[in-house]
Amino acid sequence: MNGVKMIDITSKAESYREARAEGFIKLRPETIERIKNKLVEKGDVFAVSTIVAINAVKMTPYILPLTHNIPITGVDVKFEIVEGKGVKVEVVVKTTAKTGVEMEALVGVVAALLNIWDMVKKYEKDEAGQYPYTAISEVRVVEKVKGDFGSENKN
Amino acid sequence: MNGVKMIDITSKAESYREARAEGFIKLRPETIERIKNKLVEKGDVFAVSTIVAINAVKMTPYILPLTHNIPITGVDVKFEIVEGKGVKVEVVVKTTAKTGVEMEALVGVVAALLNIWDMVKKYEKDEAGQYPYTAISEVRVVEKVKGDFGSENKN
Amino acid sequence: MNGVKMIDITSKAESYREARAEGFIKLRPETIERIKNKLVEKGDVFAVSTIVAINAVKMTPYILPLTHNIPITGVDVKFEIVEGKGVKVEVVVKTTAKTGVEMEALVGVVAALLNIWDMVKKYEKDEAGQYPYTAISEVRVVEKVKGDFGSENKN
Amino acid sequence: MNGVKMIDITSKAESYREARAEGFIKLRPETIERIKNKLVEKGDVFAVSTIVAINAVKMTPYILPLTHNIPITGVDVKFEIVEGKGVKVEVVVKTTAKTGVEMEALVGVVAALLNIWDMVKKYEKDEAGQYPYTAISEVRVVEKVKGDFGSENKN
Amino acid sequence: MNGVKMIDITSKAESYREARAEGFIKLRPETIERIKNKLVEKGDVFAVSTIVAINAVKMTPYILPLTHNIPITGVDVKFEIVEGKGVKVEVVVKTTAKTGVEMEALVGVVAALLNIWDMVKKYEKDEAGQYPYTAISEVRVVEKVKGDFGSENKN
Amino acid sequence: MNGVKMIDITSKAESYREARAEGFIKLRPETIERIKNKLVEKGDVFAVSTIVAINAVKMTPYILPLTHNIPITGVDVKFEIVEGKGVKVEVVVKTTAKTGVEMEALVGVVAALLNIWDMVKKYEKDEAGQYPYTAISEVRVVEKVKGDFGSENKN
Repeated sequence: MNGVKMIDITSKAESYREARAEGFIKLRPETIERIKNKLVEKGDVFAVSTIVAINAVKMTPYILPLTHNIPITGVDVKFEIVEGKGVKVEVVVKTTAKTGVEMEALVGVVAALLNIWDMVKKYEKDEAGQYPYTAISEVRVVEKVKGDFGSENKN
Repeated sequence: MNGVKMIDITSKAESYREARAEGFIKLRPETIERIKNKLVEKGDVFAVSTIVAINAVKMTPYILPLTHNIPITGVDVKFEIVEGKGVKVEVVVKTTAKTGVEMEALVGVVAALLNIWDMVKKYEKDEAGQYPYTAISEVRVVEKVKGDFGSENKN
Repeated sequence: MNGVKMIDITSKAESYREARAEGFIKLRPETIERIKNKLVEKGDVFAVSTIVAINAVKMTPYILPLTHNIPITGVDVKFEIVEGKGVKVEVVVKTTAKTGVEMEALVGVVAALLNIWDMVKKYEKDEAGQYPYTAISEVRVVEKVKGDFGSENKN
Repeated sequence: MNGVKMIDITSKAESYREARAEGFIKLRPETIERIKNKLVEKGDVFAVSTIVAINAVKMTPYILPLTHNIPITGVDVKFEIVEGKGVKVEVVVKTTAKTGVEMEALVGVVAALLNIWDMVKKYEKDEAGQYPYTAISEVRVVEKVKGDFGSENKN
Repeated sequence: MNGVKMIDITSKAESYREARAEGFIKLRPETIERIKNKLVEKGDVFAVSTIVAINAVKMTPYILPLTHNIPITGVDVKFEIVEGKGVKVEVVVKTTAKTGVEMEALVGVVAALLNIWDMVKKYEKDEAGQYPYTAISEVRVVEKVKGDFGSENKN
Repeated sequence: MNGVKMIDITSKAESYREARAEGFIKLRPETIERIKNKLVEKGDVFAVSTIVAINAVKMTPYILPLTHNIPITGVDVKFEIVEGKGVKVEVVVKTTAKTGVEMEALVGVVAALLNIWDMVKKYEKDEAGQYPYTAISEVRVVEKVKGDFGSENKN
């Protein structure tokens, strides 16, 4: 009558699943300098954003209604400053479950990116309190892996 | 000793606050056709994504640790198909509290965009199960408003 | 484009709001005897169900997406055994906010009723593990009050 | 000392479990007409209520304290308008875990029913702002299945 | 770049895991008398605190970011009044997962202890509204068990 | 019938409220050295624990059922290494609401302490995987303040 559906994964086999997602936040050059030199008043941007990403990965089934609640076995979060551009976040999520984890990895990426934004708001706003410069972009799934035990073995 | 800080808003005045954020998801042209023609198997993409955005706006203080838990008084979610490109999501959040709601609006936008992704995964994946085409981008704060009662009165 | 909407309560005035809801669970006479005589193995049914109702009232904005997150100022939960019939739950919720709390009261009632069910499952199931007897019914809003300070003053 | 207990399921075997629950909301005939003709201002009642049910199913261990947190593998939600009476909701929940899912199915049913109520409040209230007509009833477990893989095979 | 890490448990084997933790709350002798005689106005302290502990055990992955979300198979909560001293809480948590549950048991213990505090605040405060007497202490892990099926078999 | 009660704060006045709580975790001297020298493998213990405390403060109404959901306006978290003994955590919580925040401050303290434990488990366990040394103690409310606007003005 309305068609909204959660995919039935009952009869799928449990297997190793991994997903790698990444995304990018464009920031003012001065803000990037602050991050690099640990001069952000609200604290260590990458340490906090890592926690935010891990928490968000685990909260995925409560944020995206059609995803399944599965035990997550590993989350890795990495940051890279791309000179003159901004910050790149990469999140790898692992499980041994009946369905893939690319949505979990994507949730981790955008949560980390938004937390970076939240921590540097002060330096990104203009005098009118607007954000003419800040933007999140290029959020994508880099790779999904299935069936091997750990990405290191996948070739 | 570590400097991580939630901003103290105790002595700020309660006032009307509004934030408008938007973002974009690039999808295959066939997927966009499906969305337009309501042929997405998992259900009505825009109805579900609206709910996801509203829920996520309210969950913001539990996703982004340095944001404050405040009563949200209104959330509007709009979608627009941009021909040959993808889907644009716009979220407006309103409150009458001691702090702004741009992070809430941004959380709503990315949650809606990720939910769209989740509902069309099947049509976006290539034969290898990868997502070479799909991407979220141009997530930004369009406008913050403070002090007037409703954006319609703000000129 | 899809019409799903959270009502905008930004410009509504904060005032005293109260809602009283009730509901009923039909149980086997033996189960009711057990509840009365505190012989339910899983523990004190009414003490636990009170906690469940209070928790659920506070979780309402995360269960029902179109409700607003508002500070709840009081929750009262009462139980009555209706001989030969079952158990009646009544929940009163109070706030001083911009919108009413009947959904919160209803969520409290059904959560308490479901918790009663959960605690007496063992006594309600037949030999085939089915529940031919148990049912929740007559869940309704008894009264909404607005603008007075406490229902005791409302005449 | 107080006897409240979560059942220990450590040594139970994982097996296929399914539960089907249903419930009913009585609405004014005019409201039912509105739902049928998609004239409810707050949006598509069945699409939204499906999401609400799926979310609530996954939140069950945080709503009902004595239930176990288990991976849910499928949720189906159906609506039926019963002419001149109201709306019937049916929820089927599936898992491959150590314990049954009838509480999850029941939580899904009542959440969907309450969301319907929330979306049609405006049409159900009388001039005094009361709900003399609206009621949830006949919430029950239709069937529990255990051990087969999918209900279609259970004969 | 920041080193915050969730341990990768992907390749660990699922096995029986149990943890027993305990803790202590020092209360005024009069408060302890009230608890013993069920004269605490807010209700049955041990029944409520048991529910709080079980709920908190299940919420552990959302409270402690580096812990894994795993299915909990059993939670036991016990209270003991230690004359002239206070109340001791003991929580046993069981699972059959890839990682241990001592953090879950500890979360259960402190949640129960804090709930006791919350329920007897009125009797513990002095005239200035301060708590010169109340304190939580000796929260520790009594024992971790791995690999046997149930602690009763572990010798 | 069971007496469990959430205190009705409807008619209490909103005013400035602050609570300061503290607690202590006893750790092995080698572990403390690691924390001081940032040699804990899981990451920056104090940065992560600050986030954990702030998150937990906001989650208090969902952990402790009889507490009220109120907007928190500020959270400060401090750590101090007490030579040869362990780590002290202090949390200050502020609000302008109808009820005090000592339970929120206490929840923040124990969450931070437990997170420290979680991050240094590896260094605290003995060869048998037990924790003979680690313990949380002296968790108490240092001070409650009411009615002034900020503790700096309270004399």
